Amino acid sequence: MKHSSFFFKKKNKLKIFDICKKIKAINPTKDCNIDNIKDLNNANVDDISFFNSLKYLDVLKKSKAKFIITQEKNLKFIKNFCKPIVVENVFKAVAEITELFYPNSLNDNVDFNLISANKKKYKKIKFGKNVLLGKNVQIGNNSIIGHNTIIESNVVIGSNCNIGSNVIIKYSIIGNNVRILDGAIIGKKGFGFFPDENINLRYPHVGIVLIEDNVEIGSNNTIDRGSISNTVIGKNTFLDNQVHIAHNVSIGKNCVITAQVGFAGSSRLGNKVLIGGQAGISGHIKIGNNVNIGGGSGVIKNIPDNTRVMGYPAKELKKFLKENKDN
Amino acid sequence: MKHSSFFFKKKNKLKIFDICKKIKAINPTKDCNIDNIKDLNNANVDDISFFNSLKYLDVLKKSKAKFIITQEKNLKFIKNFCKPIVVENVFKAVAEITELFYPNSLNDNVDFNLISANKKKYKKIKFGKNVLLGKNVQIGNNSIIGHNTIIESNVVIGSNCNIGSNVIIKYSIIGNNVRILDGAIIGKKGFGFFPDENINLRYPHVGIVLIEDNVEIGSNNTIDRGSISNTVIGKNTFLDNQVHIAHNVSIGKNCVITAQVGFAGSSRLGNKVLIGGQAGISGHIKIGNNVNIGGGSGVIKNIPDNTRVMGYPAKELKKFLKENKDN
Amino acid sequence: MKHSSFFFKKKNKLKIFDICKKIKAINPTKDCNIDNIKDLNNANVDDISFFNSLKYLDVLKKSKAKFIITQEKNLKFIKNFCKPIVVENVFKAVAEITELFYPNSLNDNVDFNLISANKKKYKKIKFGKNVLLGKNVQIGNNSIIGHNTIIESNVVIGSNCNIGSNVIIKYSIIGNNVRILDGAIIGKKGFGFFPDENINLRYPHVGIVLIEDNVEIGSNNTIDRGSISNTVIGKNTFLDNQVHIAHNVSIGKNCVITAQVGFAGSSRLGNKVLIGGQAGISGHIKIGNNVNIGGGSGVIKNIPDNTRVMGYPAKELKKFLKENKDN
Repeated sequence: MKHSSFFFKKKNKLKIFDICKKIKAINPTKDCNIDNIKDLNNANVDDISFFNSLKYLDVLKKSKAKFIITQEKNLKFIKNFCKPIVVENVFKAVAEITELFYPNSLNDNVDFNLISANKKKYKKIKFGKNVLLGKNVQIGNNSIIGHNTIIESNVVIGSNCNIGSNVIIKYSIIGNNVRILDGAIIGKKGFGFFPDENINLRYPHVGIVLIEDNVEIGSNNTIDRGSISNTVIGKNTFLDNQVHIAHNVSIGKNCVITAQVGFAGSSRLGNKVLIGGQAGISGHIKIGNNVNIGGGSGVIKNIPDNTRVMGYPAKELKKFLKENKDN
Repeated sequence: MKHSSFFFKKKNKLKIFDICKKIKAINPTKDCNIDNIKDLNNANVDDISFFNSLKYLDVLKKSKAKFIITQEKNLKFIKNFCKPIVVENVFKAVAEITELFYPNSLNDNVDFNLISANKKKYKKIKFGKNVLLGKNVQIGNNSIIGHNTIIESNVVIGSNCNIGSNVIIKYSIIGNNVRILDGAIIGKKGFGFFPDENINLRYPHVGIVLIEDNVEIGSNNTIDRGSISNTVIGKNTFLDNQVHIAHNVSIGKNCVITAQVGFAGSSRLGNKVLIGGQAGISGHIKIGNNVNIGGGSGVIKNIPDNTRVMGYPAKELKKFLKENKDN
Repeated sequence: MKHSSFFFKKKNKLKIFDICKKIKAINPTKDCNIDNIKDLNNANVDDISFFNSLKYLDVLKKSKAKFIITQEKNLKFIKNFCKPIVVENVFKAVAEITELFYPNSLNDNVDFNLISANKKKYKKIKFGKNVLLGKNVQIGNNSIIGHNTIIESNVVIGSNCNIGSNVIIKYSIIGNNVRILDGAIIGKKGFGFFPDENINLRYPHVGIVLIEDNVEIGSNNTIDRGSISNTVIGKNTFLDNQVHIAHNVSIGKNCVITAQVGFAGSSRLGNKVLIGGQAGISGHIKIGNNVNIGGGSGVIKNIPDNTRVMGYPAKELKKFLKENKDN
């Protein structure tokens, strides 16, 4: 969760006994301080993390996390590799702990600190009409911000960037030489909640959107920020119009994502992945490097490196073409 | 058409002989007053309604409508249940009668009554910058309206609502505790018209959008208002980004509609329906309660209660998985 | 490239020897002036054009172009019909020549000439609040421009048009009686570039968007301008919400394009084509007249006149229905 401290006020430390009380779990044998809640990849030695699916077993084995929230049924697989804390609903417990660490993380209101761009403060930036900036916005030299665009508090934008008109950016850190086209909406909370008969309970989103150098984001894209890890768009990746990227998705470098493609949450792409128009990527999928996904495909399982797929569900391109050679 | 009188000026009553003259139909035996034109479900004893497809036969049998516009070919099925009025093109006749009752219903221009939000008039509302409000807009206490947002005349918004930035709302009534995210466009007329060689004839839209309590509408959604009935989003239903909902669609309570899903006109969903990303629902489809529709599916026929489907066209999930087990 | 001279400053003439030097090709026997670079259809006797795929062989045979950029492998097919100039990468050479003729064609920055609409200058136009207009914008009488809408320099809009709110229009010429709904983004450069390890090289876009009379463009549509030819929407064609149209696409007259349909670049549609929701059309496809494409279809090859197709990939409707009759 690199940099998320820019955006979300965090409690310094919490006691593990207090955490267990909140999530109704049995205490470990000894109390101690916990620094933060992070995913398995990013957790440090004083953090708490969580494990909900066996497909992350290899990641768990390498994780530095001090404690792992998990369910009873996973215990036998993981108890040799970590100190588990058992709960009934892992994601609900994670949400509760996130709220403990970040008491304001459920607030996703519009930013009322916005004021018209102060051209004296940002001398080497070119602003269009009616640009609204929040507090502590950083923008690098020679960047351009289009008309009616909103950049909420604490957003960081690099130099030589080109932000279009009617764009909204919040909870994001953006590299150099990035182009964001008209109408894109970047950094809103993801579509995560716990269904409830009367009022669904929203999931806290303390991750951000990280956009690396030389990226292009198309018109009317929607890119949600991460819940607990970040949403990442790798260096020199280009996205066409009307692309949707859900929370926690990580896209590698030099990818090409064509129009109207959609990603469900937490999928991870390697480098040099090409995706044709209107393809959909399910949640929690891992896609390798040098993968080519045909337009309209529906990807519902992992794809290894150097593979070409097409179809719904997506299969090897050769197989798809053979099955459909008479059409 | 609950509440549509807020938005569209209606003639008080019309004579059935005048209506028949307009639509070039044969008069019934005796003249009488007609109150309004409504769909079969909503019509009262002094209203006129219409019947265009045998799949609505059960609805027809329960309808209170005084007269029913229909085609010659349907006469034998319905003549025992209602007083039919025969025309060649049912929808064209409905459009003509709608225009008779609502002389301004074809005008879908932008609202030129908008002025900057008057913060004295709406004391308990928090407004962003550059908010534009039409005449007679009602907003409940503790609601928030984001930057650059447009709320056209006569729109009603409940209390504790959270409307994002760059949102456009027209011809809509919105409950309490509703969240509408950045860039959503709600209440424009639907995509209904009669194709014509030179200039397509637009269909009047006198329905509205009704959004019930605790709903969330995602970024860049487009939700069209109804033509003659309303477009309805039921209580505690959540919609992700880039969802499209056509005119007259009715979505039940506690549904979860993931990103980039699209609905054609007049489909009806029950409660607790889950729809995966990029799925499409054809027009005039009926989907039951507790239905689960996989991502990318194309639904082209009705789905009964408690069913899981996936595929294009959508079929039972088990069947889809069996057919695709080798991919 | 009718009218593109409105938008892009062009060098008057270039010498063919200078062009060949730029693209590292062998000179023809004699130097001469070249007027412009155009596609095969639009090139005149003093223009240079390009040939990259055998499916355009018939177009090549009719082209008036003086020289044709092509690859070694195509020589044997075309050398009897034109004067070829051989390069390794046709599109890269085209990009380089386009930049030679149009030195500013890679700049796609927002227009900083915008000012608030001057109501005295445009007396017979009705403007909403906060409308921003560029230099030399032409708007016909009785047109309406909605709130917060941006119309960049040199755009031409006909009479009796109805432009919604939050619309962005650039590099476009729009006929009479056209309706453009809220949130549409029209005329941005297409998604064309040459992938490169560090910074992708952008493709110059000197085509425009041409929208003919009586067209309707839906909410949140994205319509990209052409790279070297234009993007065209034919007379009386209607587009629903969230449609994406890539660069150089040409759509005929009286077409009906339903919500969330997407077009990849350079496809050509005839007249009276109906496309159901969420269908996708691959690049460089030719679709005839009176074609009906079912919702959700994926069209990956040409479709002849008077055909009904559905499926992914799209096949004859009868075949699709037969194969899926049990679902």
